[in-house]
Amino acid sequence: MLIRIDRGSEVPVYRQIIQSVRSQILQGILPVGFRLPTERALARTLGVNRTTIMSAYAELKSEGLIRARVGDGTRVAAGGNAPEPPRAVLPLRWSDFTRLSFRPTDDEIKRLLALSEAQGVVVLSVGFPALDLIPLKLLKTATDAVMTKRGASAFFYGPAEGVSTFRESLAELMNVRGAPIAPDQILVTSGAQQALDLVARMLVDPGDTVVIEEPTYLGALQVLRAARARIVSVPVDSEGMRTDLLENILERSSPKLIYTLPTFQNPSGAVMSNERRMKLLDLAYRFRVPILEDDTYGDLWFDEPPPQPLRALDRHEYVLYASSFSKTLSPGLRVGWIAGPRPLIRRLVQVKQTVDLQAPTLSQMIVDEIVRSGKYAKHVADGRVAYAERGRAMGESLKKRARGWAEWIPPRGGFYYWCRIKTPVPVSALAAEAAAMRVSILPGAACMADEPTESYVRLSFSYPKPEEIDEGIARLARVVRRVAAQQEQVGLAVEATRPAV
Amino acid sequence: MLIRIDRGSEVPVYRQIIQSVRSQILQGILPVGFRLPTERALARTLGVNRTTIMSAYAELKSEGLIRARVGDGTRVAAGGNAPEPPRAVLPLRWSDFTRLSFRPTDDEIKRLLALSEAQGVVVLSVGFPALDLIPLKLLKTATDAVMTKRGASAFFYGPAEGVSTFRESLAELMNVRGAPIAPDQILVTSGAQQALDLVARMLVDPGDTVVIEEPTYLGALQVLRAARARIVSVPVDSEGMRTDLLENILERSSPKLIYTLPTFQNPSGAVMSNERRMKLLDLAYRFRVPILEDDTYGDLWFDEPPPQPLRALDRHEYVLYASSFSKTLSPGLRVGWIAGPRPLIRRLVQVKQTVDLQAPTLSQMIVDEIVRSGKYAKHVADGRVAYAERGRAMGESLKKRARGWAEWIPPRGGFYYWCRIKTPVPVSALAAEAAAMRVSILPGAACMADEPTESYVRLSFSYPKPEEIDEGIARLARVVRRVAAQQEQVGLAVEATRPAV
Repeated sequence: MLIRIDRGSEVPVYRQIIQSVRSQILQGILPVGFRLPTERALARTLGVNRTTIMSAYAELKSEGLIRARVGDGTRVAAGGNAPEPPRAVLPLRWSDFTRLSFRPTDDEIKRLLALSEAQGVVVLSVGFPALDLIPLKLLKTATDAVMTKRGASAFFYGPAEGVSTFRESLAELMNVRGAPIAPDQILVTSGAQQALDLVARMLVDPGDTVVIEEPTYLGALQVLRAARARIVSVPVDSEGMRTDLLENILERSSPKLIYTLPTFQNPSGAVMSNERRMKLLDLAYRFRVPILEDDTYGDLWFDEPPPQPLRALDRHEYVLYASSFSKTLSPGLRVGWIAGPRPLIRRLVQVKQTVDLQAPTLSQMIVDEIVRSGKYAKHVADGRVAYAERGRAMGESLKKRARGWAEWIPPRGGFYYWCRIKTPVPVSALAAEAAAMRVSILPGAACMADEPTESYVRLSFSYPKPEEIDEGIARLARVVRRVAAQQEQVGLAVEATRPAV
Repeated sequence: MLIRIDRGSEVPVYRQIIQSVRSQILQGILPVGFRLPTERALARTLGVNRTTIMSAYAELKSEGLIRARVGDGTRVAAGGNAPEPPRAVLPLRWSDFTRLSFRPTDDEIKRLLALSEAQGVVVLSVGFPALDLIPLKLLKTATDAVMTKRGASAFFYGPAEGVSTFRESLAELMNVRGAPIAPDQILVTSGAQQALDLVARMLVDPGDTVVIEEPTYLGALQVLRAARARIVSVPVDSEGMRTDLLENILERSSPKLIYTLPTFQNPSGAVMSNERRMKLLDLAYRFRVPILEDDTYGDLWFDEPPPQPLRALDRHEYVLYASSFSKTLSPGLRVGWIAGPRPLIRRLVQVKQTVDLQAPTLSQMIVDEIVRSGKYAKHVADGRVAYAERGRAMGESLKKRARGWAEWIPPRGGFYYWCRIKTPVPVSALAAEAAAMRVSILPGAACMADEPTESYVRLSFSYPKPEEIDEGIARLARVVRRVAAQQEQVGLAVEATRPAV
C-alpha cells in the first residue's frame, strides 16, 4: 500500500489518504482481505496524527470498502474491489431522459464558432462585433469608477429587475430612440438572447403558434424550437416583413406572438418601411397579437438613421421591445434589456428570478457608468463609421467578385449581407468547402424555420478586419467555382452512366 | 403649434420635431384640419435646415398623422387625433397570454427582499452572504489583473460552456472537494440557480416526477413549478434525507430526477450522513434515477469538514453536481457551475447557448484569477470562521430567548437555523408581525412543496452583523409572545360568543 501525502495541497490530509486507499482498492491493487496497517502504524509512517487516520478509515468503512473486526484488524472488504451491488449497475442512458426539444442545429453553429478561432480563417459567419471596436480604455475607466463609487455592492446581489439607476439610463436611451418608457417598464436581461427566451417561456406553450420573419435571427429559432412553438414564417423583402401576407396568416393561425427585427434585420439587412410598420401594428391590434420587436442593430446605421422603432409608434401597449449592448459595447458583459407593458414586465421579472435570479450586477453598473458619462453615444457613433466602412468594403468586393453567382440588396446598416446563390450548388457543400479554404460563412438554412427552396448564405462584415474582407470574398468566389465545377462533373458522370435509350 | 428643440440632446432634431408634433396631435392640441407651417417657414422659425423639416413631415405623413395636398398645404389628418382605426382597439389582456406555471410565491420573496432594504431591519430572512465578507480588495486586484492580462477578450464573447482556463480551475476545485472531474465535464452557469433551471429544462417534461427533500431550497421549488414537474418530497432529519422512505417513493413514481442538498442543507442545515449517501446512490443505481447534487454550502463548515460530496462517491456517473461562488465570493458576478457526465454536459451547453449564449466573460475571468492566485481558499477559510461566529451567536441567542416556543438542531455549517415553532401561532401572521417589528424571517412554507402541517421558520445568520443577531431574535421572541396572546384572545372571544349549551 503506497500513500503519498502532499502537504502543500488544499486537499485535507485525511482526504488524500481516503482517495489513495479507495483508488487502490477499486483498481484491485489492494485485494479483498488485504490487511491494512493499524491506525497507529500508518499514522507513524505518514507522520500524521492518529485521529487523521481514524477519520479516513471511518469514512472508508462507511463506504463499504474496508471492514474492521476485533482481533482481525482492518481489511479490504469483500465487494470492496467489486463495488457494484450484486446486481450490475446499468449506466444511465441520458438520451432516455432528455427532452427532444433542442434540435442539433446548435452543433453547426458551434462548429462554425470553433472554426472562427482557427488561425488564418477569414470569419464571415458570426455576428460578432469587431474586436478592435471593444472600447477597452472606456470599459476599464468605467470599471474602476464603478468599483470606487459602488464598493462591495458592485459584487453583491441586486434587484431581479435590474440595478435601479441602470434602468433609468435605459429609459433615457429608449427616449433617444423615440420610444419613451418608464424605468419600471424595463427588465435587464443577460443579453437580448435571454430577452427572447424569457418571453417565450412566459407566453408560449408547446404547440402555440409564433409568427416570425423568413429569414430570421437563428438564436430566435433555437428559442422557439426549445419552446416547441409552431413556427409560421412571413417572407422579408427589401422593405422588411411582407405585411401584405400577414393578414391571411393571422386570420388562420391565432398566434401568441409576432417576432420581428424591423431594423437592419438579421440576416437580411432589410429595414421595414414606415408604411409597413403602421400596417403591422394595425394588424396586431386587429387580431390582438403581441409583437416582440428585436432592435439589436437599430443604432448601427451607415448614412442615415432608420425609421423609429415599432415601440415608438405603438399606442396600445402591444409592443415588447428588446435590445442589447452586445453589438455596440461589449458582448461579454451579457447585458440587454426588454421593455413593455407593466403587467408583462412584472411577470417577466418573476421568470428572470426563477431562471437565474438577476443579470450580473458589475456588468450592469459598468454599462450604466458608460451610458451616463455620455461616452456611449460617442462610441456608438464611431462604431457606425467603422461598420459603414466594412459594409462598403464587402459591397465593393461582392460587386467585383460575386455578380456572376450571387445577388443581394446592399444593407444600410447592421452587420450582414444576405446573398442568394444563383449558381446551383448545395450550400452545405459550399460551407464545408469554404471552411477547408479558410473562409467561414453561414448557410442561409440556419436562419430559416423550414428547409429553404433557394440557396442563401449570410456574410457578416462586422468581425473581419476591413482588409481581410476582400480576401474572404475572393476565397469564397474560388470555392463557388470549384463546387459548381464538381457539381457539373457529377452531373456529367450521372449522364455518362445513364443507359443509352 | 409650439416646438422646443434641445440641441444638447442626443435625440436628433428631426425626431424631436416629430415627437413634439405627434404628441400635440394625439393630445388634440392640434385639431383635425389644422394647417401646419410650410417646411420653409418652420425651418426658419426653428433655425434648422429645411431637409430636417422635410424628414419630420415625411415620417408624420407615413404615420397617417398629417396629409399634404398641393394648394392646400400640410394639415392634421382626419383620424390624426383619433388614431384608432374605425373599430376600437382592445387593450391586450396579458393574463390571457401568459402561462400559468409561475406561482406567486415569488412575490412573497420579493416583498421580503424589499423589506430587507429598509433601515433598521434585522434581516434574518435572506440567504445573502455577509456584505463585509465580500473581499472588495481581492476582487479589485483581480479585476485589474484580468483587464491587463486579457484585454478586450475579457469583454468579448467566450465559449458557451465557459472560459477554458476557468473550467480548468473548476476541475481543480472539484478535485479539492474530493470529486475529480475533467474540465470538459463542466459547464459554467449564471449561478447555481441557473444550473437547476438548465437541468430542469433538459430533463423535466410537464408532469414528470422529481423527488426533492422536505424542506428544500425555495429557488428549486420555483424552477420545478415553472417546469410543471410533479413534486414528491422526502423528509429531512438530522442526518439528511430520509433514505429509508425513498425506496418506496422510487418504486411507485419513476422520477426523472432526485434533487438533494446533502451538505448544510438549505434550509434545515442538515448534513447527510455517509451511510445515507451510500444508500441514496445505491437506490439511484437500482431505480436508474439521476441525482442533482446542490453543493452551494459545502465549503462553509464551522469546526470540521463535512463528508465528501455524492459526486465523489458516485462510481457510475449518476450524479450531476452544481455549486456556486455566490455564497463564498460574490453573488453579483453570477458565476456557478454544473459538472457531470459528458453526454449530459454537452446537451446542457446547448441549452445554455439557447437561453443566454454564455455566462459573463468578465465575471468568469475575475473568479478564475482569484482561484488561481490561491487566495480563494484563504478567503473561504476566513469566511468559515466568520460564519461560525455568527452561527454560534444565533445559537446562543436562541437558547436564551426561544427555548419556550421553538426547537431546532444546531447547524454545523451553512447559513441557516431551521426552527419548529412549538407555540400554536400561524407563521404568516408571525412573519407579518415580525416585519412590523423590524425583523424579517422566512416562513417555512416557502421551502416546502406542500402546505406544512407544522409551523417552521428559517432564520439566516449569514447577512446580519453578529451584534444584530441577538437583537433580531429578541424582537422575534416579543412578536411570538404577542401573536400567541392575540391568538389566545381570539380563542377566548370565540369561546365567549359560543352559545351556552
